[in-house]
Amino acid sequence: MNHVTANQAWNTQKVKRQNKLDFAKQKGFSKQVNAQQARELLETVISCGDRVCIEGNNQKQADFLSKTLSQCDPEKLNDLHILQSVLALPSHIDVFEKGIASKVDFSFAGPQSLRLAQLVQQQKISIGSIHTYLELYGRYFIDLTPNVCLVTAHSADPYGNLYTGPNTEDTPPIVEATAFKSGIVIAQVNELVDELPRVDIPGDWVDFFIVSPKPNYIEPLFTRDPAQITEVQILMAMMVIKGIYAPYKVKRLNHGIGFDTAAIELLLPTYAASLGLKGEICTNWALNPHPTLIPAIESGFVQSVHSFGSEVGMEDYITQRSDIFFTGSDGSMRSNRAFSQTAGLYACDLFIGSTLQIDLEGNSSTATVDRISGFGGAPNMGSDPHGRRHSSYTYQKAGREAVDGRLIKGRKLVVQMVETYREHMHPVFVEQLDAWQLQEKMESDLPPIMIYGEDVTHIVTEEGIANLLLCRTPEEREQAIRGVAGYTPIGMQRDHVKVAELRERGIIQRPEDLGIDPTLATRDLLAAQSVKDLVKWSDDLYNPPSRFRNW
Amino acid sequence: MNHVTANQAWNTQKVKRQNKLDFAKQKGFSKQVNAQQARELLETVISCGDRVCIEGNNQKQADFLSKTLSQCDPEKLNDLHILQSVLALPSHIDVFEKGIASKVDFSFAGPQSLRLAQLVQQQKISIGSIHTYLELYGRYFIDLTPNVCLVTAHSADPYGNLYTGPNTEDTPPIVEATAFKSGIVIAQVNELVDELPRVDIPGDWVDFFIVSPKPNYIEPLFTRDPAQITEVQILMAMMVIKGIYAPYKVKRLNHGIGFDTAAIELLLPTYAASLGLKGEICTNWALNPHPTLIPAIESGFVQSVHSFGSEVGMEDYITQRSDIFFTGSDGSMRSNRAFSQTAGLYACDLFIGSTLQIDLEGNSSTATVDRISGFGGAPNMGSDPHGRRHSSYTYQKAGREAVDGRLIKGRKLVVQMVETYREHMHPVFVEQLDAWQLQEKMESDLPPIMIYGEDVTHIVTEEGIANLLLCRTPEEREQAIRGVAGYTPIGMQRDHVKVAELRERGIIQRPEDLGIDPTLATRDLLAAQSVKDLVKWSDDLYNPPSRFRNW
Repeated sequence: MNHVTANQAWNTQKVKRQNKLDFAKQKGFSKQVNAQQARELLETVISCGDRVCIEGNNQKQADFLSKTLSQCDPEKLNDLHILQSVLALPSHIDVFEKGIASKVDFSFAGPQSLRLAQLVQQQKISIGSIHTYLELYGRYFIDLTPNVCLVTAHSADPYGNLYTGPNTEDTPPIVEATAFKSGIVIAQVNELVDELPRVDIPGDWVDFFIVSPKPNYIEPLFTRDPAQITEVQILMAMMVIKGIYAPYKVKRLNHGIGFDTAAIELLLPTYAASLGLKGEICTNWALNPHPTLIPAIESGFVQSVHSFGSEVGMEDYITQRSDIFFTGSDGSMRSNRAFSQTAGLYACDLFIGSTLQIDLEGNSSTATVDRISGFGGAPNMGSDPHGRRHSSYTYQKAGREAVDGRLIKGRKLVVQMVETYREHMHPVFVEQLDAWQLQEKMESDLPPIMIYGEDVTHIVTEEGIANLLLCRTPEEREQAIRGVAGYTPIGMQRDHVKVAELRERGIIQRPEDLGIDPTLATRDLLAAQSVKDLVKWSDDLYNPPSRFRNW
Repeated sequence: MNHVTANQAWNTQKVKRQNKLDFAKQKGFSKQVNAQQARELLETVISCGDRVCIEGNNQKQADFLSKTLSQCDPEKLNDLHILQSVLALPSHIDVFEKGIASKVDFSFAGPQSLRLAQLVQQQKISIGSIHTYLELYGRYFIDLTPNVCLVTAHSADPYGNLYTGPNTEDTPPIVEATAFKSGIVIAQVNELVDELPRVDIPGDWVDFFIVSPKPNYIEPLFTRDPAQITEVQILMAMMVIKGIYAPYKVKRLNHGIGFDTAAIELLLPTYAASLGLKGEICTNWALNPHPTLIPAIESGFVQSVHSFGSEVGMEDYITQRSDIFFTGSDGSMRSNRAFSQTAGLYACDLFIGSTLQIDLEGNSSTATVDRISGFGGAPNMGSDPHGRRHSSYTYQKAGREAVDGRLIKGRKLVVQMVETYREHMHPVFVEQLDAWQLQEKMESDLPPIMIYGEDVTHIVTEEGIANLLLCRTPEEREQAIRGVAGYTPIGMQRDHVKVAELRERGIIQRPEDLGIDPTLATRDLLAAQSVKDLVKWSDDLYNPPSRFRNW
């Protein structure tokens, strides 16, 4: 540290870091810390007011460290500013209830969205902003740089080199932003080994590691049981394949999470193949290793998949399909959420996902009044990237549809795939998104819209496809949306003459316009009808978590 | 490799890789390769038709490996598909002239743009696409994954761990995409050491490393001599500070390269400080370590800078200013172009840069007919990110100006700063961009526009500022642009009545409307008037390259 002492005034962060490390050393801590002393470590190297980044991912969780932080003494440790991709575990909220942390910047709070909303009401938490993942990582390097990060990896060697295994996920940007701005990096690991299968994070970026009493939690978030896919979903999936993927020749894409897109994946080896689309569509993916993609992979539809994270039970299958997946020399997957989101933004021609509400401008949101759920990756994937400069058949065709004159840029396809009514008979199509009410309640500058209407190109419902690219006025757009909104109040109030005209012009397409017979939309079309079928397709390489096994 | 042989059909890439490695081993190659054998190595592990990613960055260059590749035997090695950020060196073009490579996907070709255009004419090269940097990295994980990459680092240890030093730049995404999709990673390094100051790339991601006969080339691309800044540039910089940075309270930003923005940097400690703007603007940057930012840093204007790459001569200064820059525990900078571009896209409120041409819709381009230069980072930084969800004073104010009704999203500020005439009296403002002619010549789907008019919010010239956000029709927009286009033909053809109205409404602002006296725009206002002044400001820590030393 000689280079620092020369001018401490400009190296206060390094000095602060060194003081923390010296203090820890005085207390007897070395690089490997005993789990029993984890709380003491945190109370030693975290200061009040610090920005602390907890690795709470979409899937894997630094659960031990998060729980330990929530057990710290709020007299010693308070006013922390938490940075976190996903608020998933009870301990993620406990730190606010206990007064240890006071502010949060995050991306998604699915499982904890209700408690989060309550804490806001009780004024026990201040929400900085809700981000899309890549945006949050960007801010780690600008104005939300962590002072301390609590991350998780599968194993460490005695030097603190980390092996993340298949779930690398968010670890690289978190550690890089912290380690290279004089922060302190603490990792929990499942095991200490002499030699790692591979190094995912170099040991000299890591200050402390702790073998956790239990392996870190990983949620099998992307597993969908084919048995639960309905015939309506199959009909919509047929429309997507024949009405969007085929004419636009969509090769590079991302699928959102859920049964709607799982249905598409399971129709590729059957319905799409019968249309002669093998090799023509869906070849290159930014996607987690969805088990429902196995039949399409085995049928030769898929050339490559880069993943944000892994999926529980897919480990052996991935290892044995290294032509498809990104894997290390050890055979296990290398995922990377930052790079996969970058690829989803700039290298994919289509994003398709679901939502809870859509308004008459095509804005969509998953926010409802009593839940603050956030967005995850959807705003990034579901946006037309104005920085994109390479072309493709898809990009150009979509761009051409959007303008009458000279083509200056293409368009990314952003598709919303919804049934007109969701659970409890809530209509998806609404006059006004709940997001506006939520904005008032949260007193935020902007409403929590997931995908902006201006970025949406197609809406698919059981009634048909609305192509918003071809609409030339806001009025046409509104009627195109009403025209696929079914028996919702929004759909009932359609202008029938205008909707007929839009159908004539191909802006609205019904199943029959696409040559799809709805009576053929049966579960027989699914390449796999159960999780067991997926296992069979995988040559017994897929090993589903027990909760998905009913045989 | 036992896990692979079980099912070779799905692991052909790993098998191919292993065969190449076995072949190299038979020839006696171990991990460290002698420079004299570099050509033989490349001819051994690269196959005809391979996608080869050469680390040709904005600044540092894998020059030895690139030169070696260009010396390979085209009988043995041909039809390569080159992936590369920047075509900067003669050898980057030689590989095409010699028939070793036939196709290229890239981002920027500044120094080689003329030769590149000639090769296209001679049909010796096929251009896949021209990208912005982040877009190209994204494609590395989707459909442009390298089979072999040739990268460069400062040093290696005997295990092949790499230390990139301050110029990490593009290395991480290149190596990750290659190493984890069964590719082969070859690094040139300046030196072999027993122990690295820090590990930037883990050794088990690297297959071969070669101590290069000469240190890798690094271009001091971002050094601008204050002595060359003109009074017109100073006037424009004053307008930007008082007319844009101050009212929008721009804190998080990126500056393009060039004297226009260097002038802004040098006015921060003088003019901006006199307006009371210290701490109010320009606090957090995504920026290479511009020497012209030194006075602003020393004056306490700047809180943090995250960098795409480093800058020659700034090493000691950076080490001694670790509160500002991202540095490793060894004291040297950690740059990362992928993360800095991500931050520029999603975490910055403003991008300001220059261009060669602007049309009446505000589209801008640096492409001219006989040069294929590409874009670099500008399309990414200069786009309004529709995936952004966090707010800021800047973002919200800009969003509010753009709409009359309810605010659904904010706007990123994208500013083009140009003198109305560039060198050789070429008018910057034109009826039609040369990009359209170039599109025809290149037979590409889309014209090589750098920044789309729809993303540009302000145009600043010596005549004033045009605020395009406030324009409500294409006609207003056109007149706003004409209204600051000076004595160019475009400017002369303005509608004087409309321009006066736009000025009345604050859409056009002249220096006098901003309370700026153009006679005060003198070089006295610059915090540093020479490179020597910058050295003084830096407390002699800045060590400029000899070509910038005239004392």
